[in-house]
Amino acid sequence: GDAAAGKTKAVICAACHGPAGVAAIPTYPNIAGQNEQYIKLAIKAYKNGERKGGQAAIMTGIAGSLSDADIDNLAAYYSGL
Amino acid sequence: GDAAAGKTKAVICAACHGPAGVAAIPTYPNIAGQNEQYIKLAIKAYKNGERKGGQAAIMTGIAGSLSDADIDNLAAYYSGL
Repeated sequence: GDAAAGKTKAVICAACHGPAGVAAIPTYPNIAGQNEQYIKLAIKAYKNGERKGGQAAIMTGIAGSLSDADIDNLAAYYSGL
Repeated sequence: GDAAAGKTKAVICAACHGPAGVAAIPTYPNIAGQNEQYIKLAIKAYKNGERKGGQAAIMTGIAGSLSDADIDNLAAYYSGL
C-alpha cells in the first residue's frame, strides 16, 4: 500500500485511534506499529460484518466506506508508525 | 489484573503473539503495549462469539478457556509490555 495516501485517508481514523495511531480512548486499540497484514484482515473483518458487538458497530460503518486500496494504504501507513 | 499471573497464563498466547507480545506471524496482531481495556474487550468479543471468520476461530477456542480473572491478568500483563 501507499503510506502517504494512507496518511491522508487516516484523518477519519484519528478521532478514535489518535493522531499517530495511539488511541485517545482506552477501549480502542493502538494501531501504530501493528502488523500490516493484520490491519488489513481486521478492517476487512469489520467490512464483511464478521465482528459484532458494541465496539464493532462504529468500525463496521467506517470500514464499509473504505475501498481495498484505502485499506492497503491505511495498513501501510499505520504499520509504519 | 495481576500481570505476574498474566505472564504465567501467557504461555498459551506466545505461539502466535510471540514470546513478548510481538507476533511471530504477520497475520496476527502485536499485543505488547496494547490498551488494557481494549485487550479485555477483544478477548471477550472472541469468547462471546462476536468475532467470526478464519482468523477468529483459533482465538474463539482459546478465549473460551479463559476465566474473567485470566482475561484481566493477561490484559495487565500485555498492556505493560
